[in-house]
Amino acid sequence: MIEAFEAPAYLETLLLVLDLCGVFFFAVSGSLLAARRQFDIIGSVFLAFLAGLGGGVVRDIIIDEGVPNAFANPLYLIPPAVAAALVYFRLITQGRLRRTLLVFDAAGLALFCVTGTQTALAAGITPVMAILLGVSTAVVGGLLRDVVANEVPEIFNPQGLYAVPALFGSGLSSLLWVLGVFTWLTAALVMLAVFAFRLVSLRRRWWAPGAAHGWRS
Amino acid sequence: MIEAFEAPAYLETLLLVLDLCGVFFFAVSGSLLAARRQFDIIGSVFLAFLAGLGGGVVRDIIIDEGVPNAFANPLYLIPPAVAAALVYFRLITQGRLRRTLLVFDAAGLALFCVTGTQTALAAGITPVMAILLGVSTAVVGGLLRDVVANEVPEIFNPQGLYAVPALFGSGLSSLLWVLGVFTWLTAALVMLAVFAFRLVSLRRRWWAPGAAHGWRS
Amino acid sequence: MIEAFEAPAYLETLLLVLDLCGVFFFAVSGSLLAARRQFDIIGSVFLAFLAGLGGGVVRDIIIDEGVPNAFANPLYLIPPAVAAALVYFRLITQGRLRRTLLVFDAAGLALFCVTGTQTALAAGITPVMAILLGVSTAVVGGLLRDVVANEVPEIFNPQGLYAVPALFGSGLSSLLWVLGVFTWLTAALVMLAVFAFRLVSLRRRWWAPGAAHGWRS
Repeated sequence: MIEAFEAPAYLETLLLVLDLCGVFFFAVSGSLLAARRQFDIIGSVFLAFLAGLGGGVVRDIIIDEGVPNAFANPLYLIPPAVAAALVYFRLITQGRLRRTLLVFDAAGLALFCVTGTQTALAAGITPVMAILLGVSTAVVGGLLRDVVANEVPEIFNPQGLYAVPALFGSGLSSLLWVLGVFTWLTAALVMLAVFAFRLVSLRRRWWAPGAAHGWRS
Repeated sequence: MIEAFEAPAYLETLLLVLDLCGVFFFAVSGSLLAARRQFDIIGSVFLAFLAGLGGGVVRDIIIDEGVPNAFANPLYLIPPAVAAALVYFRLITQGRLRRTLLVFDAAGLALFCVTGTQTALAAGITPVMAILLGVSTAVVGGLLRDVVANEVPEIFNPQGLYAVPALFGSGLSSLLWVLGVFTWLTAALVMLAVFAFRLVSLRRRWWAPGAAHGWRS
Repeated sequence: MIEAFEAPAYLETLLLVLDLCGVFFFAVSGSLLAARRQFDIIGSVFLAFLAGLGGGVVRDIIIDEGVPNAFANPLYLIPPAVAAALVYFRLITQGRLRRTLLVFDAAGLALFCVTGTQTALAAGITPVMAILLGVSTAVVGGLLRDVVANEVPEIFNPQGLYAVPALFGSGLSSLLWVLGVFTWLTAALVMLAVFAFRLVSLRRRWWAPGAAHGWRS
């Protein structure tokens, strides 16, 4: 449709803002997990940093364009610190069991699948591989959080879809880029769709077929 | 023996083919683990990608020559997808408990210790350190698979040797390169030897001495 | 105070020596964990390498200046091999339960928070972000060791402080650099302080407040 999509001037700001919001949402999920597991404030700060920054750091290491954003830009230190503080002062509480954690996790997932894909595209990765990298960015932060805290990663939870909404969002995000219509508005729409998709799948307990056909009837 | 070993023209193709086969074998082991743990098809695809691509991605990140192969070459998406499909349609089944999984894992181990070492050597890493990187490549995919799925990693299983065959294969592979005789034939022989070594060690339940002498009598 | 701090000529040697010592201490903690878990000698060597080299490799990958030290300099192979041998021949034994392991872990923590911060600063990372990287270096080796062996990571242990001494050491280390007074002597003093801080916190069972205020009374 267009020979070389010219990234809009504000794209960098757009990605930075969305990325920082995604970091915040995942960081809250980390601190809430720490509260649920009765870890101390140090464990809470640590899980906030790991869940918030883990996905983006792995993405940037794979893209291999110098020091990862999270270690180059001090702004990235703020969202995890704020998240741990909000949980500590109980301005964000767990609500009914795991529900609040999962809502924040879903918001982080929605933002990171979009920013991950766009960051990869901006670094010159092809649209198809950028989808893979977007899904990885979205999934890795929560995965590190769960593995380190010895929880079964959410991606394996049979009730609700996790990677599928991320794949959907990364695919749409990559398509918007190819079509040259990736803007604040379209980005927001994709993120809302992913967020809604994930939450509806949780509420309705959507499930995917088993790993081996007929194994789980 | 030779001043500067000239890599054969077909070396790149050789390594790509072997690497893709190794990805496939490890990917099958990931999907079989998902089936055994009654994860869904998403978890199966995820473990196929993680087990299949994890070792090579870590290797490429350490070598630090741009974007890892698995994220640069779309061919790498095929083996994990095929592996998850084969397990889903039960064209590969678990056989008696964990046996099939371990056979595919052994095949992946045999291929990756060779391709990991050669990729490192081709990137200018010294022969001794290439052995360390080869073993890491071979071991990391299965390790990530087991850690994420909360299994005890196969490397700690007291029955059968895991890292030793990989070390043996990486060492031989590095030696072949130094001697300038790394070809399709010699590579195949080393991989067969590693595969056989691993399977015989499993069947005969070979074990290594304990971490502390006399601790385990 | 000074416009551009000129790194002393011996800084490289200083960092290498301290880094190798830190690798040794963490490697011993890995082998001791293997002995306690009754893993075999292979598992012991593996955990020695993972705990000893893990933190530095992650640090070097994030700094993104070529192949990580541990894969570029064969000297790094020696400390983990020596550590596994010392544990095997029972020249280092577990003493009373986990105590010896924790002493070696504390020594590694003390050294790595300093060398991690300095390596980051030498690579041009800003003083504030270098602190984050120093803490990461100090914490990651032990974290990988515990996650892979399926232990609850020491950082989540409610009795004793882990990340706080590392943060204290990284902060001081970064300050020394900025003031231009980072030398053998000051480095040694910081490391001793971190080591003592960690051990006293363990003995006195210092604890941090819970992740959510009032949650744990």
